[in-house]
Amino acid sequence: MKKSIGAKTIVYPAPVFVVGTYDKTGNPNVMTGAWGGICCSSPPCVAISLRKATYTYANIMEQKCFTISIPSSNFAKEVDYFGITSGRDVNKFTVTGLTPVKSDLVNAPYVKEFPFALECSLLHTFELGLHTQFVGEILDIKAEESALGQNGLLDIDKVKPMAYAPGNQTYHEIGKVLGKAFSVGKRL
Amino acid sequence: MKKSIGAKTIVYPAPVFVVGTYDKTGNPNVMTGAWGGICCSSPPCVAISLRKATYTYANIMEQKCFTISIPSSNFAKEVDYFGITSGRDVNKFTVTGLTPVKSDLVNAPYVKEFPFALECSLLHTFELGLHTQFVGEILDIKAEESALGQNGLLDIDKVKPMAYAPGNQTYHEIGKVLGKAFSVGKRL
Repeated sequence: MKKSIGAKTIVYPAPVFVVGTYDKTGNPNVMTGAWGGICCSSPPCVAISLRKATYTYANIMEQKCFTISIPSSNFAKEVDYFGITSGRDVNKFTVTGLTPVKSDLVNAPYVKEFPFALECSLLHTFELGLHTQFVGEILDIKAEESALGQNGLLDIDKVKPMAYAPGNQTYHEIGKVLGKAFSVGKRL
Repeated sequence: MKKSIGAKTIVYPAPVFVVGTYDKTGNPNVMTGAWGGICCSSPPCVAISLRKATYTYANIMEQKCFTISIPSSNFAKEVDYFGITSGRDVNKFTVTGLTPVKSDLVNAPYVKEFPFALECSLLHTFELGLHTQFVGEILDIKAEESALGQNGLLDIDKVKPMAYAPGNQTYHEIGKVLGKAFSVGKRL
């Protein structure tokens, strides 16, 4: 018999998305968000929800584009810093020593030191309440060669991404393989 | 210098959401989806994107509600089975031996054997392309006592959830803690 714990925003795992934007004056900014995920295969789209109060919200409304950089697990401190500070007050790239790279497809920067980044053009803006959901069309993924598998796609064992646990408020490594999708379920 | 790998739907990690619905005749169904995530804190909302062709799509359109059960890592086979079969053809609960429990808040079933489930009322339906995004208001979470931490919330180490890797098409365990959020970034 399960117990009611209330209307909490908890799912496991949540992602760790580092959203890259430029402000009006061309200053690069990044913020960390966990309220998002892929939301359509065709056109390929990713969603990220942000509060109106964030600097990134204003930047996306202005520029109509953004990037999502996926950090590897050795950047937990930087990622957390990106989440607890505002681009209004600090240049987060300067403080962390990480490097903004301008996307060649959209007017937004991604993080050079992270294994890959999605370049997104704003397709929809959905007002949901405290958060606004931005749906971006993924125009391309830029990836480090060292993070690619034999299939030419991103190998999670090489990317070594991190997951976020909303209930615990902790960042986690991704662990060992449990099975192949579209496969293990055939042999119940 | 990063390399272009095309407009792929890859983020790490993606979640493993088991969406529970009833069909018109009251048969319980579950399907697995990875295109989703929390999308608003207030009202608390979760998004899941489904193709129109799925049985679950029709069920949500009919019932205006759904659940999302979060599986623990020992259910990879069942979860994969839920993703590769259709409720039109089989009763997935009967085949896997798992148990549907009717939510007491919405007309949708969740999986008894999984550590927790979100009970959701349909708030928005966004047509994005191949996928339709359903935004559900989380009315409550029902959880196993054994999955709760000292703060009364879900402890990821007890839930032992799984993550999905779209590029590899594999299910993964969640690994060790990298750091505390809203904390490790204060000491750069």
